Amino acid sequence: MMVPQWVIEKKRDGNTLDDAEIRAFIEGFTSGAIPDYQMSALAMAVFFQGMTPDETATLTDAMMRSGDLVSFAGWPRPTADKHSTGGIGDKLSLMIAPLAAAAGLAVPMISGRGLGITGGTLDKLDAIPGYDTRLPIGRFKDIIASVGCSIIGQTDRLAPADKKLYALRDVTGTVPSIPLITASIMSKKLAEGADTLVFDVKCGRAAFMQTRAQAQALADSLTRVGRALNRKTAAVLTDMNQPLGRAVGNAVEVAEAIETLQGAGPPDTRLLTIELAAHMTTLSAVHPDLQTARNALAARLDDGRALDVFHRMVAAHGGDLRRLPCANAAVEVKAPAAGYVAGVDARAIGRVVLQLGGGRTKTDAAIDYAAGIDRLVQSGEHVEAGQPLMRLLAKDAAAIEPLLPSAAAAVTLSPRPPPPRSLLL
Amino acid sequence: MMVPQWVIEKKRDGNTLDDAEIRAFIEGFTSGAIPDYQMSALAMAVFFQGMTPDETATLTDAMMRSGDLVSFAGWPRPTADKHSTGGIGDKLSLMIAPLAAAAGLAVPMISGRGLGITGGTLDKLDAIPGYDTRLPIGRFKDIIASVGCSIIGQTDRLAPADKKLYALRDVTGTVPSIPLITASIMSKKLAEGADTLVFDVKCGRAAFMQTRAQAQALADSLTRVGRALNRKTAAVLTDMNQPLGRAVGNAVEVAEAIETLQGAGPPDTRLLTIELAAHMTTLSAVHPDLQTARNALAARLDDGRALDVFHRMVAAHGGDLRRLPCANAAVEVKAPAAGYVAGVDARAIGRVVLQLGGGRTKTDAAIDYAAGIDRLVQSGEHVEAGQPLMRLLAKDAAAIEPLLPSAAAAVTLSPRPPPPRSLLL
Repeated sequence: MMVPQWVIEKKRDGNTLDDAEIRAFIEGFTSGAIPDYQMSALAMAVFFQGMTPDETATLTDAMMRSGDLVSFAGWPRPTADKHSTGGIGDKLSLMIAPLAAAAGLAVPMISGRGLGITGGTLDKLDAIPGYDTRLPIGRFKDIIASVGCSIIGQTDRLAPADKKLYALRDVTGTVPSIPLITASIMSKKLAEGADTLVFDVKCGRAAFMQTRAQAQALADSLTRVGRALNRKTAAVLTDMNQPLGRAVGNAVEVAEAIETLQGAGPPDTRLLTIELAAHMTTLSAVHPDLQTARNALAARLDDGRALDVFHRMVAAHGGDLRRLPCANAAVEVKAPAAGYVAGVDARAIGRVVLQLGGGRTKTDAAIDYAAGIDRLVQSGEHVEAGQPLMRLLAKDAAAIEPLLPSAAAAVTLSPRPPPPRSLLL
Repeated sequence: MMVPQWVIEKKRDGNTLDDAEIRAFIEGFTSGAIPDYQMSALAMAVFFQGMTPDETATLTDAMMRSGDLVSFAGWPRPTADKHSTGGIGDKLSLMIAPLAAAAGLAVPMISGRGLGITGGTLDKLDAIPGYDTRLPIGRFKDIIASVGCSIIGQTDRLAPADKKLYALRDVTGTVPSIPLITASIMSKKLAEGADTLVFDVKCGRAAFMQTRAQAQALADSLTRVGRALNRKTAAVLTDMNQPLGRAVGNAVEVAEAIETLQGAGPPDTRLLTIELAAHMTTLSAVHPDLQTARNALAARLDDGRALDVFHRMVAAHGGDLRRLPCANAAVEVKAPAAGYVAGVDARAIGRVVLQLGGGRTKTDAAIDYAAGIDRLVQSGEHVEAGQPLMRLLAKDAAAIEPLLPSAAAAVTLSPRPPPPRSLLL
């Protein structure tokens, strides 16, 4: 018999929990037999004492098994998914799912909402009128079978232990723990059933992992757990000091995704889209190596086949891209002087978008899908005095006016060109 | 506004909580506005990060103020109490309260029950037929006014935050934390209203604090908080590797207490009784120094005046010492060989008493008040082969028989006399 406080004490004192203890604890917590106050004490003990890779893998597996498991066993195509730890202007899922599908993968993608300054893929899809993100798993699989990919929202039946634990961690100061973050991300991703998982671990001022060391530790933990649970896993560390692309918001990011799927779009967005999809196809053995994968995937963006998959996925979900919402008011932010863009502060940009109405400060707050920023300058570009640095979009000019100074302050200008941005770390 | 998770995070990250944060957290926890899962997470953060003396004092004060406060303001006699951190055979409260009262102090003593192998004063008093430990505070004060001392049990209205927090710590692995132990002990003791508090911090194998360093840290913390909250406080470190006295149980300890109050009793029991009471009377300025106090208190034991106060206290509570329960069965444990008693394992003795029926393994278990051990040999004494080492008492011989080997094993015999026991550390 597992005595919950003995397990807490064991971890508190720096010992390694065994498989049965971790599983019994998570099962008890999920069923309600172990109360929240014991789970939060264990989570705090894990915050201080950490977990070994084996413990983290067991915790992940136990949380994954707390609910339904999607299976693609016997499917002709290899299955793969990508997960990002969250950033500003990160619309990569919208391109990567159809691009990887166009290359021959089946992509089951279950995404989350944004909170605070960090956007969520689900909110971006909700910006498309009619797009239904709440499909049952059967319909999700049907769309993947016919289109090649589907993006839906989290269901209550997938990794419910994570849903319960995440809500508890959020209010008990136990969020920033690598083993707990790993188990939270991986339990949901593994329950999705994909054989291959590629992680985009964001690093920088506007990311959850602010230092390179933290991001590397999370990347290592994710890939180790993936391997321990028999998935092909890779992690890529990418910069999140500056926003990704020229658009930050919801409808504006969908528009930029479409641009990128048309073979255009900002270079950073195209580069990361191809790079992450290349890891998916290479790990899945669709392509023999990364360079071949990059070339093949660039061709799929340029020949419109990835865009075609995207259109078919949106249509299968009931979405209508012709009715993508447009903001009533748009105000340009002008450069105060001539110079090179030395940097764009992603955190500051995220805050402006939030205040324009494009994000939510509480989990149940409403979003203005048309609000956001577009036409944003990027690091290294030259501007003349009075040229626009970006455009702020909102429901009316009064909502924009007070945000102009902080929007302008987010862009740093310099007389000399800055060193090139390292997007891949 | 105090956001509970911010307070948890602040402590988790090693920062010092301010007065308002601690008070708001304890008030919220007591009222139920802050749920158990946040309190347990904070308790675990405190386990790892500790608390400064000021934080501990504020926590203690906040917990003390969560309920009723007893006041002796304006009383002619100085008020003083003694608290022990718990041990085996520790019947000192039964002698110290009447002895200190006989020396001129008013002694308001609120005691606890035993749990596990550690005895509780309240259980010993409950062994006296008729003694009512559940008197209201008004009656408690009346008895102190007329007799000089009263010993009752914890009421629900005294430091309810401690009652709630203690129950939570017990099941969340957050018991062994010096600041939390300090606040738990002190909040109750301060709410009693005594001006002077003397702590008997037990140290050794059968004590909660097993090392000298832990015991010293707790003693320092208790006295610092006492001073911070304007009480006269002293702490004495005493040995708890071996039991105190020759009797362990409930009725047998009452009998040994009476013996000691008659000027007899085992030397260790008499010594500690006088020593702790001497700190109480000296701090309260009844005696000018410890040596004068020791002499005066020894005289109060020898002239029967402390015993008289004890009899009057028991009578005021409705107790009848003539009906003290006797065990039906008594079996002697014989020495396997001749030798000097090198040590008596207090932990082993405590376990035997528990199994004889003299303690409880769950908070609501019933106790056999007559069960226990008496006539126990003490370190340094010489025994011949076949002479009794102790007598086991229980409801029948069948309950005693299986415990004889472990009882015998608790006594270590040696061909040479051991070094003298250091009772006061």
